[in-house]
Amino acid sequence: MTIRVMHVGLGPIGAAVARQLAGRKGFRIVAAVDIDPNKVGRDVGVIAEIGKPLRVKITSDARKAAKASKPDVAVLCTSSSLKGVLPQIEELLKLRLPIVSTTEELAYPAPANRRLAKRIDDMARKAKVAVLGTGVNPGFTMDALPIALTSVCEQVNRIEVRRVQDARVRRLPFQQKIGAGLTREQFEQQVAVGMVKHVGFTESIQMIADAMGWKLTRIADNVRPWMAEEEVHSELLAVDPGYVAGISQEGIGYMGEEAKIHLQLDAYLGAPESFDSVLIDGSPRLYWKVQGGVHGDIATASMTVNSIPHVITAAPGLRTMRDMPLPSFFPGK
Amino acid sequence: MTIRVMHVGLGPIGAAVARQLAGRKGFRIVAAVDIDPNKVGRDVGVIAEIGKPLRVKITSDARKAAKASKPDVAVLCTSSSLKGVLPQIEELLKLRLPIVSTTEELAYPAPANRRLAKRIDDMARKAKVAVLGTGVNPGFTMDALPIALTSVCEQVNRIEVRRVQDARVRRLPFQQKIGAGLTREQFEQQVAVGMVKHVGFTESIQMIADAMGWKLTRIADNVRPWMAEEEVHSELLAVDPGYVAGISQEGIGYMGEEAKIHLQLDAYLGAPESFDSVLIDGSPRLYWKVQGGVHGDIATASMTVNSIPHVITAAPGLRTMRDMPLPSFFPGK
Repeated sequence: MTIRVMHVGLGPIGAAVARQLAGRKGFRIVAAVDIDPNKVGRDVGVIAEIGKPLRVKITSDARKAAKASKPDVAVLCTSSSLKGVLPQIEELLKLRLPIVSTTEELAYPAPANRRLAKRIDDMARKAKVAVLGTGVNPGFTMDALPIALTSVCEQVNRIEVRRVQDARVRRLPFQQKIGAGLTREQFEQQVAVGMVKHVGFTESIQMIADAMGWKLTRIADNVRPWMAEEEVHSELLAVDPGYVAGISQEGIGYMGEEAKIHLQLDAYLGAPESFDSVLIDGSPRLYWKVQGGVHGDIATASMTVNSIPHVITAAPGLRTMRDMPLPSFFPGK
Repeated sequence: MTIRVMHVGLGPIGAAVARQLAGRKGFRIVAAVDIDPNKVGRDVGVIAEIGKPLRVKITSDARKAAKASKPDVAVLCTSSSLKGVLPQIEELLKLRLPIVSTTEELAYPAPANRRLAKRIDDMARKAKVAVLGTGVNPGFTMDALPIALTSVCEQVNRIEVRRVQDARVRRLPFQQKIGAGLTREQFEQQVAVGMVKHVGFTESIQMIADAMGWKLTRIADNVRPWMAEEEVHSELLAVDPGYVAGISQEGIGYMGEEAKIHLQLDAYLGAPESFDSVLIDGSPRLYWKVQGGVHGDIATASMTVNSIPHVITAAPGLRTMRDMPLPSFFPGK
């Protein structure tokens, strides 16, 4: 059985997903959608750098593409913002397509997005299909995985997740996204306009809180620059001392004055060690660590692709990683 | 909402589960069953060392107990063997009770048990309830967790899981179960009669293989003694050099000559470091480690208790950790 996929959005993450879909067993890209006039009309295999044309032309008209190609599912990789993807989700749900999306704000209904999430849930139920937002973060390392680790606990007091990444080995857009090379002032400006920030802490914190039954009173999400103390460089960028080497972002879920959930993301050029760690302060106490960390780009694309079969068979509505079956590599059938 | 639990089986694991059920929010033990004449008629709170009587008397008649107490679910902690628990499962399913069990062979249908598993699945569907076998191992550290970690991979070649435990900190029955203090000959005899062995490797290996789409040709499961090279002792046992300090068990899932899945359990007095580790040899390559390991007894009881709400709402039939929702600590409601 081959799952027929309509691919929507061919930015860096969308292209990475498309490459996996083209290379892995069990999937076929039958339609590709993007609004970029430089991409429309061109072969998705060329634009996504798959190495060969797929004989599927990118179109800006999702409706027409779906009618012609009869996909089983839509993969949506266009924007981090729930508000931003809402019209696209509405269009896909009118076509009765289940949706897997990398939209960070779709990973879990954060307090500010509850109304929008409810609307998507209603539409999805009406269309009798499931919608899932996922990826490596949010979607796994800082929420679903820590939650899964608590399953061996009789008591959980506090959860702390750290993700430290040496940005030198990541792609240039990532190095720029974390503000590497900026002055402190430029960095603060970029943060203020939302250009430098990991999106998803609020979603991850709310997901963990709901799983643990913690009624949070406040969620903090603070972005600070990680300043270079000495010259540091990647193959793509050099940063002088006193300039920004990357980002240090801290998300905290509070119950009153108590910090119950602590997420810390440090991504900067020259981090001495890349790792992901999860501390479950409970009974038993658990400290998990993955040496070298989980590679963000491959991991997000993989999680998206691996979730597709689950979403196709899931109960209609806006689903989250909490109520989906155990996540797993999907080998095709 | 309080979940009404009928508790079946009050050995060490069953008692640990009962203690959690009594101490945690959201549950109430409304009936307790055991066939041991020394336990029948006594209060479950006393037998399970809960610290206070629960005013629930242990009975040997599950049917009568269920009729009188109207439980929502049965927790079954009696035996490792699927064949051994079959009559109990049949009886509970006749009462239309969903079942969560620590029976290791119920965690996943191994090739030798497929017929029995099918029979349980049929009965459960007929009774319109779900049955789940779970625990920390099998059920999590050496199967569900490695499977969940592959969700960020685009390719998986091989999976290796290690669990090393210094048995000095475990209870006496555990130290005895791993053969500590025996001669090599006594150990081999105990292995031959099935007294010294971790049950569940075949189940864990089959669960991973099915998730990865690997058609195994053979599953090996070998138990060897870990011999003490110098005197080693716990608070409970002393072992002289040349005697058995514990167990070294290796499970391998082969496709032809290729070892695709490798599970290694070393539990012995004096292990220099306790840990659980998972290596996913794939893209990306991942090496996860939990320092100190996951405490077996608390973890198995916790996983059992935390699975109860999921099993109550699961689709009817014999379920496994693969198709249940994301495992999680259950906070009560």
